[in-house]
Amino acid sequence: MLKDFEQKKKEDKETLGAELKELRQLLLSQQQLLRDAKLPVIVLVEGWAAAGKGGLIKELISEIDPRFYQVVSPAILPEHEMRYPFLHPYASAIPENGKILFMDSGWMENTVRKYLHREITHDEYRRRVRAVNEFERQLRDGGYLVLKLFLHISKDEQFRRLTSLRTAAETEWRATDEDLWQHREYKRFVNAYEDFMEKTDATFPWYTLDAKRRKSAVRDALKLLTAMIAKALETGRYVGDPFDESFPLLPMPQLSEVDLSPTIDDEEYDKKLKKLQTRLSELHNMIYHRKIPVILCYEGWDAAGKGGNIRRVAYALDPRGFDVRPIASPLPHELSRQYLWRFWTRLPRSGHICIFDRTWYGRVMVERLEGFCGEKDWQRAYNEINEFERQLTDWGAVVIKFWIHIDKETQLARFTDRQNTPEKQWKITDEDWRNREKWPEYEVAVNEMLQKTSTKNAPWYIIESNDKKYARIRTLKIIVDTLEKACDDWLEKQMK
Amino acid sequence: MLKDFEQKKKEDKETLGAELKELRQLLLSQQQLLRDAKLPVIVLVEGWAAAGKGGLIKELISEIDPRFYQVVSPAILPEHEMRYPFLHPYASAIPENGKILFMDSGWMENTVRKYLHREITHDEYRRRVRAVNEFERQLRDGGYLVLKLFLHISKDEQFRRLTSLRTAAETEWRATDEDLWQHREYKRFVNAYEDFMEKTDATFPWYTLDAKRRKSAVRDALKLLTAMIAKALETGRYVGDPFDESFPLLPMPQLSEVDLSPTIDDEEYDKKLKKLQTRLSELHNMIYHRKIPVILCYEGWDAAGKGGNIRRVAYALDPRGFDVRPIASPLPHELSRQYLWRFWTRLPRSGHICIFDRTWYGRVMVERLEGFCGEKDWQRAYNEINEFERQLTDWGAVVIKFWIHIDKETQLARFTDRQNTPEKQWKITDEDWRNREKWPEYEVAVNEMLQKTSTKNAPWYIIESNDKKYARIRTLKIIVDTLEKACDDWLEKQMK
Repeated sequence: MLKDFEQKKKEDKETLGAELKELRQLLLSQQQLLRDAKLPVIVLVEGWAAAGKGGLIKELISEIDPRFYQVVSPAILPEHEMRYPFLHPYASAIPENGKILFMDSGWMENTVRKYLHREITHDEYRRRVRAVNEFERQLRDGGYLVLKLFLHISKDEQFRRLTSLRTAAETEWRATDEDLWQHREYKRFVNAYEDFMEKTDATFPWYTLDAKRRKSAVRDALKLLTAMIAKALETGRYVGDPFDESFPLLPMPQLSEVDLSPTIDDEEYDKKLKKLQTRLSELHNMIYHRKIPVILCYEGWDAAGKGGNIRRVAYALDPRGFDVRPIASPLPHELSRQYLWRFWTRLPRSGHICIFDRTWYGRVMVERLEGFCGEKDWQRAYNEINEFERQLTDWGAVVIKFWIHIDKETQLARFTDRQNTPEKQWKITDEDWRNREKWPEYEVAVNEMLQKTSTKNAPWYIIESNDKKYARIRTLKIIVDTLEKACDDWLEKQMK
Repeated sequence: MLKDFEQKKKEDKETLGAELKELRQLLLSQQQLLRDAKLPVIVLVEGWAAAGKGGLIKELISEIDPRFYQVVSPAILPEHEMRYPFLHPYASAIPENGKILFMDSGWMENTVRKYLHREITHDEYRRRVRAVNEFERQLRDGGYLVLKLFLHISKDEQFRRLTSLRTAAETEWRATDEDLWQHREYKRFVNAYEDFMEKTDATFPWYTLDAKRRKSAVRDALKLLTAMIAKALETGRYVGDPFDESFPLLPMPQLSEVDLSPTIDDEEYDKKLKKLQTRLSELHNMIYHRKIPVILCYEGWDAAGKGGNIRRVAYALDPRGFDVRPIASPLPHELSRQYLWRFWTRLPRSGHICIFDRTWYGRVMVERLEGFCGEKDWQRAYNEINEFERQLTDWGAVVIKFWIHIDKETQLARFTDRQNTPEKQWKITDEDWRNREKWPEYEVAVNEMLQKTSTKNAPWYIIESNDKKYARIRTLKIIVDTLEKACDDWLEKQMK
């Protein structure tokens, strides 16, 4: 009997070894196909402390070429990540097309742990779950494959592993106090993990692996991964459909209804400019002190006066506490990632002000009109952007969006002036003239954008800029008023 | 008399106003010329606490277009910067060609303050001064313009300003304890600032501005900046000459002298591989724990076996503590900065291991042979790289460099095998064949590189890789031995 048992065990081990070898070979060959098909893959490995997340990842990557994968461990978040939205480290890490990202614990661990530590409220927990679902759906709709694994071990097994780490001097530090705390709170963690997995199972399902037996866990992970990739290679890159989601939208006028006649005389302008800049300067101190992040978005017609407007705002600010981010055409490494990636990685830290000179709305304007993305892509973008901006304001950010508006005649006059003034010529290019020819198409796109993305939490303001000075005073006033309110709200929240 | 005085004051004020306006206009027009001439500019603003560094920068940028400048304030270093070499935040922030970077205090403040706080020893201070001089020279030789300003106020004036900040609730936090400490230690700071300026005046001189009178300080800064730019626009982009600097070089053989016959049999390979990987795994724990940064550099002939070699090393490491950085051709935003920038921004944090699959040595190989940089550029690079690597090892890093070596016949055999094996075909491109034709030229370049950059602190190892398995064991052995020594040295340092 015992002999048979030993024989069986030996055979099983050999079978497993052969299986592993085969699966690794398969993954190795899929890697090139992934590259050719430009498919990006994320493997999220979550699970218990000491369940062997790092070890599993090590086995998964052992055969593949380092040029095609990356491993990140946001579990050990650098301190500065505390000053960004909680999805920031994950959204910043998404891979390029054709590459695989292995994530050693991620948005689940971050959320569950903080919740059990009572560092976030139940409301905040629910908002995070929603944000996670939005994030995963956006990834899927943008063509990403995400495999979510949970490495499970029993409380007894965890005890054995933590004890064994603790007994050797060189590994002692690897069983952290935090891990021991989890062990003591094992039951609460079971419930919390289950709740989180249940609520985030819709877009990409969770797979629980028995991590007690390390090799078979590796085999199971490899099976899931290669199967997911094989299927995607067969069906091709997924493009998500537009979807409905109700956001509290503000009514917006059509551009053609906007009265562009308002002006301001020079004396009043100088007086108001100075007053508003002084106040903004004070508010910047308060914002900085209260760690409120502020995001100012500028969009508008060419030659509408965005640059000059931004300069008047910037002049009131302490350069240590703000940045202007000019958004040009995406670079190759930006183009090969989900389109919001280059904005996730450009967010301000809490307490800082970030002025975007053009924004993520390029998706529903230039990218729509020039065909840089598919129809479904820009149609989906309205809601994706609303979700993104809600994640920003949930984080505590103030988000204000300006459409700097002029009429066609004013644009022509300014273009001509630029053309005829040597030191302004660099500001005018053939592309500007080409864009001008597409004014009617742009007007349709801008109107649709304003209608669909002016939310209560991140409103659009149409700024009449035929008179640039009038426009500057108006934007400054809106910024000052909004920041006053944000400071008041902050105070109120503190007193609760 | 008094009337005349008032009149004179008024006239002075008007003159100053007119001067400022003119200088700002000049800077505005220079901005486009800078862009066309692709000249990068750094304006470093150092000075006393409360001297008005931020305010000065605000005035300097008030007219220029946000697309062409950036402001950084490394004074408020995020915590994670503590885990990088001290020049890291500055080297990571250098601007692209055609753009201006304003730095609100930088390498001077960081060094002087840490020294006066006794956080760095006198030896460390001297090493930093040397590194700063190297850094500035490398910037100059790479075509950068650097303007270094020191904003000076007297102790009395600082007292007035700090007091006034402290008395208003909203600005109180801006006069930090650190600032008050500086005020108390004013005299020590005078000496330390002077010493630092004296010792770092060679490449780009320091300019001290009287910051008591804010507007005239702005005028002086604008004058210096526009004059510097005007001169550079006239003389064109500077290209530094190669220079001599003695580094403790290790003797290296010519490639042709290397005996490529060593092999290893499979049984011994398996045994040694396992043993070395186990030990490396333990050492990784120790390295992580002791916060020693490790940089492994891989260069070598195409098909020499770099990838497989790296994988065997990676397999022994915890994915949470290492990264493989494959270095491909530079992207546009990398090409338009000093060539070491893309490596500065890819350094490991302390305690982490970073494996570079190809490195900064591309400068003296492919860039030299393909003419991607000028002759002076690659000739200068040997010493620039030696300096860079010394800065890394001064920081505490272990730097090991491997040249994975094969002969021409072995390469041909492997190329042919790749060509004939479907799943390996992606690994072989026309470029590989073209490079192969240039073998003799490459051999000259590689020999020169090995002779000139194998320093005691960052040595080259030529790895015989005709037998890939032999090569893997050799690199693993070198890594293990070097890390053992690094851990011993660390312990010794602690006991001092």
